[in-house]
Amino acid sequence: MRNIKLLIEYDGTNYIGWQRQPQAHGKSIQGVIEDGLKKMVQHEVKLISAGRTDAGVHALGQVANFHTASTIPIERFPLALKGILPRDIVVKGAWEVAPDFHARYSAREKTYRYTIRTARLPSALHWRYATHIPGPLNIAEMRKAAGFFTGTHDFRSFCAKGSPVKDFVRTVKKAELTHDEDHIYFEVTADGFLYHMVRIMVGTLIEIGRGYWPAEQVKTILAAKDRELAGPTALPQGLMLVEVKY
Amino acid sequence: MRNIKLLIEYDGTNYIGWQRQPQAHGKSIQGVIEDGLKKMVQHEVKLISAGRTDAGVHALGQVANFHTASTIPIERFPLALKGILPRDIVVKGAWEVAPDFHARYSAREKTYRYTIRTARLPSALHWRYATHIPGPLNIAEMRKAAGFFTGTHDFRSFCAKGSPVKDFVRTVKKAELTHDEDHIYFEVTADGFLYHMVRIMVGTLIEIGRGYWPAEQVKTILAAKDRELAGPTALPQGLMLVEVKY
Repeated sequence: MRNIKLLIEYDGTNYIGWQRQPQAHGKSIQGVIEDGLKKMVQHEVKLISAGRTDAGVHALGQVANFHTASTIPIERFPLALKGILPRDIVVKGAWEVAPDFHARYSAREKTYRYTIRTARLPSALHWRYATHIPGPLNIAEMRKAAGFFTGTHDFRSFCAKGSPVKDFVRTVKKAELTHDEDHIYFEVTADGFLYHMVRIMVGTLIEIGRGYWPAEQVKTILAAKDRELAGPTALPQGLMLVEVKY
Repeated sequence: MRNIKLLIEYDGTNYIGWQRQPQAHGKSIQGVIEDGLKKMVQHEVKLISAGRTDAGVHALGQVANFHTASTIPIERFPLALKGILPRDIVVKGAWEVAPDFHARYSAREKTYRYTIRTARLPSALHWRYATHIPGPLNIAEMRKAAGFFTGTHDFRSFCAKGSPVKDFVRTVKKAELTHDEDHIYFEVTADGFLYHMVRIMVGTLIEIGRGYWPAEQVKTILAAKDRELAGPTALPQGLMLVEVKY
């Protein structure tokens, strides 16, 4: 059996998220790609992804792998899938990898970017890729707060309730806030992310930007290990899985 | 009666074009905005636009005007329309203008930009705003060809057949081709455009980029005043109305 790794870009707007959910209405990214691969390799395919993005979340560099006995040359996959998949999912590359490669377990770090549009009005062309918050935000305070995420912490306060995870300790290697005239960008790299972690981080940064909390509140929230103390979960549409490193 | 000028951004993907067409299936940009304005000003509204963009064509800076007896303060229009219009149409500004201002007849010049994606694969995130042509294109030759469009010419060869226009002479003030790693951008500014003019220009430039014609063929095509001699009409999705000047 060959083990094949795919690099995938997608617009999550019209999907119920990465994960196939038989009971849910609507299509999943996983389901659509698995169905497309099945047409190519002529058997059922089970895709393992680096991260299960939520409904409305996008990816520039999602990674997934699957096993197949097919002998289709590896370089054919991207172009062949282009003819099968809808326009909002593109397989940008395919590689044959070692049998033990696992898109989730083998990942060393992931980078997400969250985009907030701060202009008075939303953009008709880019609304899918940003959350619109026209109110004034204190960017300097938000940047200071973002810095407190870096390092190894118990991120229980930044994990959605009901998550089956037991170990909430993650190492954030980079948590940077940048901006241009109309946007704030929050880019965060970690060895792993808890469920809704980036969106709760952003919801918290927005509260700080609004002046509801000082930047140091991040330290208090981390120490409390209590989801109730953090800010709300920011909307999915500003979130993008940028890169996965192995 | 007040005369009100609107600056409008839209994603044309899901519309039949700017113009209201009672017989056509689907919504027009004009119709959706007119219906929205009607809710605000409480009477039927007739919008006059700077240019009637085709189905699938976008605008960063479309301009339109309408007359109303409403006394709604001018600064309220953008935010109020934000609550009424769909996300892919945004009114970015509103101004009260002189009674004789006419969005089409008063326009001094318009700028369109056409984007060609030249990467091997399309983009899942930006497919709405570019036409994908993965084949190798001779950019230097295309740039040279673009230069031949500048100046005052009879553009009959670059006008869709069946257009009711009698005067085909237009002055192209700027026709520039630029590029980055994955895209070619053709930006053209003129005192006016004929029906499908930019798209036929681009279709011709693509033939030149493919090596089917030399750059000088543009001069031959212009001189012939015959639509049959120009290249095909390029797809609408790469086209954007960037700016209208008065």
